[in-house]
Amino acid sequence: MNKINNPKLDTWSEILKRPTKTIDDIEVTVKEIFKEVQKKGDEAVAKYTSIFDGIALENYEVSSEEIQEANSSISEELKAAILLAKENIYKFHSAQKTDKISIETTEGVNCWQEKRPIQKIGLYIPGGTAPLFSTVLMLAVPAGIAGCKEIVLCSPPDKSGKINPAILYAATLCGVTKILKVGGIQAIAGMTFGTKSIPKVYKIFGPGNQFVTVAKQLATQFGVAIDMPAGPSELLVVADDTAVPAFVASDLLSQAEHGTDSQVILVSTSKRLIQAVEKEIQIQIEELPRKAIAKKAIENSKLIYVENDQIALDLINEYGPEHFIICSQYDDFYCNGIINAGSVFIGNYTPESAGDYASGTNHTLPTNGYAKNYSGVNLDSFVKSMTFQKISKEGIQKIGSAIEIMAEAEGLQAHKNAVTLRLKSLKERG
Amino acid sequence: MNKINNPKLDTWSEILKRPTKTIDDIEVTVKEIFKEVQKKGDEAVAKYTSIFDGIALENYEVSSEEIQEANSSISEELKAAILLAKENIYKFHSAQKTDKISIETTEGVNCWQEKRPIQKIGLYIPGGTAPLFSTVLMLAVPAGIAGCKEIVLCSPPDKSGKINPAILYAATLCGVTKILKVGGIQAIAGMTFGTKSIPKVYKIFGPGNQFVTVAKQLATQFGVAIDMPAGPSELLVVADDTAVPAFVASDLLSQAEHGTDSQVILVSTSKRLIQAVEKEIQIQIEELPRKAIAKKAIENSKLIYVENDQIALDLINEYGPEHFIICSQYDDFYCNGIINAGSVFIGNYTPESAGDYASGTNHTLPTNGYAKNYSGVNLDSFVKSMTFQKISKEGIQKIGSAIEIMAEAEGLQAHKNAVTLRLKSLKERG
Repeated sequence: MNKINNPKLDTWSEILKRPTKTIDDIEVTVKEIFKEVQKKGDEAVAKYTSIFDGIALENYEVSSEEIQEANSSISEELKAAILLAKENIYKFHSAQKTDKISIETTEGVNCWQEKRPIQKIGLYIPGGTAPLFSTVLMLAVPAGIAGCKEIVLCSPPDKSGKINPAILYAATLCGVTKILKVGGIQAIAGMTFGTKSIPKVYKIFGPGNQFVTVAKQLATQFGVAIDMPAGPSELLVVADDTAVPAFVASDLLSQAEHGTDSQVILVSTSKRLIQAVEKEIQIQIEELPRKAIAKKAIENSKLIYVENDQIALDLINEYGPEHFIICSQYDDFYCNGIINAGSVFIGNYTPESAGDYASGTNHTLPTNGYAKNYSGVNLDSFVKSMTFQKISKEGIQKIGSAIEIMAEAEGLQAHKNAVTLRLKSLKERG
Repeated sequence: MNKINNPKLDTWSEILKRPTKTIDDIEVTVKEIFKEVQKKGDEAVAKYTSIFDGIALENYEVSSEEIQEANSSISEELKAAILLAKENIYKFHSAQKTDKISIETTEGVNCWQEKRPIQKIGLYIPGGTAPLFSTVLMLAVPAGIAGCKEIVLCSPPDKSGKINPAILYAATLCGVTKILKVGGIQAIAGMTFGTKSIPKVYKIFGPGNQFVTVAKQLATQFGVAIDMPAGPSELLVVADDTAVPAFVASDLLSQAEHGTDSQVILVSTSKRLIQAVEKEIQIQIEELPRKAIAKKAIENSKLIYVENDQIALDLINEYGPEHFIICSQYDDFYCNGIINAGSVFIGNYTPESAGDYASGTNHTLPTNGYAKNYSGVNLDSFVKSMTFQKISKEGIQKIGSAIEIMAEAEGLQAHKNAVTLRLKSLKERG
């Protein structure tokens, strides 16, 4: 752990720097696979499924038998937990629905804004050691509330050609319309171009390794939208002597177990707390099954002492953490002052893992400083806002001349003409 | 004009195909300039300003003298028109403010969503023959309502080192905090990396030629967000015999004058109307100063006859037009059924140019089929939504076990542990 004492302002950007990766070599691979899937469709998907997942599949779509099988293989306990989480996610995202916004800007000029669902979306759920069924909930629940018509889920098959049953259970529960056993770059390419087996979608959501991340970025060059650019997961905790060191340590470790590149930062106005947390980390880390990963991440972690809460807040806003835990007597000060963060966790009994699973907030959040310019996934991620206007004869007479003058000043005569013709016809009739 | 009669479903995608451009050769130039600006800052900006704009500037920032000069050079008539437009844009975008959304998902588990402004934004306004001061209003007004702290505007200088006075007037009126005489790729690169003269921003908005478009796309690879990917402007009109052919023709032409690559489509259930509009276009086009451009665009335009309104609607949703005018006795049918469009104009007295300038809706809209997955610029484009959660001791006891079960099932022991520790401490105390 790197302890940093009262860093000067001009060192902040260096201290808060995230490790950057060169993606140039990955990009070449991703582009090649994209080209091949675009050209050869399922044939290319089969080829790369065989190379990367080590299996040949006759059918990519998960069958209803497989879903039933998954259903019966999951414990009732896990099902109940998933249902509770789903319920809370549903409640919070339903509350985000917005009404039509309508206003008469000038007499006779009615303007309104309405939201319409994105018709076809794709969810990518990684396979591997951690089957992220929680991410299925986080994406499919709001997609359902939004009214997306086609919800396609791609996840890589394991060596026996299966997808983790909890993923299948969650997907079925949340109304995913098609589940496909396709992973990695070939899944993203498939959803970008469409193949015989994989539907083309308009927007792709979900996490993934760096190949998937680069593939999603590339997809945007072919007209597909994505939820947000991705980077390693991050947690920043601000804590003072009102915090419980063991709890803070457990939160930092829950972040650290994600990956060796996870970013873990503690900011405090109390040197005593920093020391206590450091000790607790050393104790708790030994018990973790993912100890090796957590240790690597903790090695790069930062414990930063600052003189007061204003400095702490400024530094946190400069960093823009994905997850931000506040365990401070001044929690209101931080809540009101935080501008750049993905999701905020307040108080000693609000661990980050609550938001990861079951509080109801979304866990798909901006990393890598993107909290400065991107929202986390929310209901609006699944809709588009459209505007409407209806102008009466009186309305166009009120604003027509302003349009004519502005169009003329911009040198756009036909724009002016569209108004002039209408005004003239009204005058002639009038 | 291409008249298409009752096209079969399987020909739609061919008929509605937009021209695609290869950007590979542009990309090389853009990447080079980015690299140079990243490395050499203002020195590179000066070099490319000299190459592309043909001028050497000592100072990129517009001075207060230049602003005063611009102010006094604009007619009172134009100022009044700009003020009217600004007022309507302000009203419509202010109405889009959303309250904090707060909900107790489980007893003791409080979740809320709040929006915070993006702190630093950049607006790009092209120079050239059409000085788009209206776009300044469309971007700077909502940025001001959102509370963005730094609003930087870049626009290329003309040969005498000036920016069009109407652009300066609109920018000052709307609270732009810094106006810079920098254009093209070097402006986008400057706002991406920051130079001595050009502040680094978090999100870049605004139109531009294909160099600017590619530059904005590249900026996203360096952590900057953009408003949306851009393409040539588009208009689709659906009209029946209740429409006035001269009005429809004037709208189609107002779109056609934008550029030779503008997309202009008329869909109708009336062959009579199609013929009448065609005639009107031929008359009106001769009067336009930008006749040459409009004629090229009209050559590629499409007049599509379909048998009924349901087919028309399906076809329009398949296309996803940027601008969509409805002049039909069934306007409600189209308003309710349209899913993919940027902005919708209803009735004979609602020309597209009203939305371009003064109705109050935003004119920065998704083109190129992006209406299927992107919103037009609106108040939310200038903010990020953040989530908060605060869980009480009772709350964590209610959802804690679900979190433990799910974390364990995902193989994330430290995530579970963060909850277990808290539950245990409550049990011990309780």
